[in-house]
Amino acid sequence: MVSSSAQPGLVYLVGAGPGDPGLLTLRALHLLESAEVILPDDLVSDEVLALANPSALIIPVGKRCGQPRITQAGIHALMLEHASAGRSVLRLKSGDPLVFGRAGEEIAFLRQANIPFEVVPGITAAFAVAATLKTPLTDRSSASKLIFTTAHHAAPGVRAADDGREQEQKQIPFGNDKKKWWEGELPPDATLVVYMPGRNFRTLADELIASGIDGTTPCVAVSKASTPDEHIHATTLAELEDASVGPAPVLLLIGHAIQPAARSSVRQRGTA
Amino acid sequence: MVSSSAQPGLVYLVGAGPGDPGLLTLRALHLLESAEVILPDDLVSDEVLALANPSALIIPVGKRCGQPRITQAGIHALMLEHASAGRSVLRLKSGDPLVFGRAGEEIAFLRQANIPFEVVPGITAAFAVAATLKTPLTDRSSASKLIFTTAHHAAPGVRAADDGREQEQKQIPFGNDKKKWWEGELPPDATLVVYMPGRNFRTLADELIASGIDGTTPCVAVSKASTPDEHIHATTLAELEDASVGPAPVLLLIGHAIQPAARSSVRQRGTA
Repeated sequence: MVSSSAQPGLVYLVGAGPGDPGLLTLRALHLLESAEVILPDDLVSDEVLALANPSALIIPVGKRCGQPRITQAGIHALMLEHASAGRSVLRLKSGDPLVFGRAGEEIAFLRQANIPFEVVPGITAAFAVAATLKTPLTDRSSASKLIFTTAHHAAPGVRAADDGREQEQKQIPFGNDKKKWWEGELPPDATLVVYMPGRNFRTLADELIASGIDGTTPCVAVSKASTPDEHIHATTLAELEDASVGPAPVLLLIGHAIQPAARSSVRQRGTA
Repeated sequence: MVSSSAQPGLVYLVGAGPGDPGLLTLRALHLLESAEVILPDDLVSDEVLALANPSALIIPVGKRCGQPRITQAGIHALMLEHASAGRSVLRLKSGDPLVFGRAGEEIAFLRQANIPFEVVPGITAAFAVAATLKTPLTDRSSASKLIFTTAHHAAPGVRAADDGREQEQKQIPFGNDKKKWWEGELPPDATLVVYMPGRNFRTLADELIASGIDGTTPCVAVSKASTPDEHIHATTLAELEDASVGPAPVLLLIGHAIQPAARSSVRQRGTA
């Protein structure tokens, strides 16, 4: 990867990591400092955006509840408009852009519109959380598989059109879906990371136990990871309680490889 | 995460990413520039090590075939020796330190020896490879699960002792194991990434097809990812051929979300 500055007319689909600027890649920093237009998701932190070139045009394109809504097609239109005008465009997503980030739709659009683009990976929340907990995610004897999953997904068979126009996607929180969130037995030697788990943690834990996972399996719920308000609830699958889990966004880590140093606590960044 | 310099007597367990220095985190760069002792694995690239403080003591602790062998206990002894002497120690692993990196054994040792330590995540090879291929790893309609697995693992029940002494671990390449590498059916809506897949790609593909995965499922084998010698073999599960895959290290990506821009090719870094 050549570490050149952001080039005119190119779109950079870049992972901003979990929020802590120290977890940005050098390449992401270089693009923040040189891109002319920046399109950040809501979860991209203020500390990260503070590193942008002061003359950059920053257009937030988050779609979270309570925010003015921009459609996926609207994001595509912004990328097209600015890249066509010869500007360098930094499309900044939290975590890694290719994991649970709807990157597929943006990549399909960029290809179809013949807009040259580059993808830069980022630190996904699971890795940052595991580093904070100081726990391995795999283990040579007990966990040879690491599974990332999410309880939010599109309705079966629904797919955004290739021209980038957004079709209405039904977001199905875990527990309300007719299809079970996991089909078949979970491998006993797996570590499971659940992104966007919803709020029905007890139901989720019960389904995992019903699928054959032992209730004594360690389970850690991390709320607002990599922020000053980070909250950690370390327990077991059998003892996971909805009320003990902090506010969204929450990440769940489940498996015998998970060995957090301490039980439930609120931690501040920078503490050991 | 406070972005202070490496502190005396602390051990930093840090991910160096896939090899490209542009994919180092800012925190990893800062520690490279300030640590007094650096213990890198073999897969940590020369370009990354070139960023180290020129006065740092660099002791390679790789354990790959053909290299002078250092045991896991030997690595622990080096961490203890230098941290006890009040030096800052950077234990540098390729990719992310908590994924398929034997971090569990080093963390258990550090805790038992009461050596303060910090963990810094890194970009894992799968994310770098997906960025190069410009393919999503998940998809809202076709892939709600991302599974990292490896065909190398310890013999069942074998676990390193807590005191850090290395027990002899049997490395079982895929295909020679009595236990199937995957038990039960693979979820149909999963993307599978196989780290250290061995060389029996055809056998692995046949087992996946036998477990119910369609032979037309996209499959990409990436050899020497993120290096100038990177080699990409993009095909389907049914058409995967041992002879078409480049030299180790190889990463396999399998699933319907995988949409590489091109079929088999040798690419150079920095090309679009």
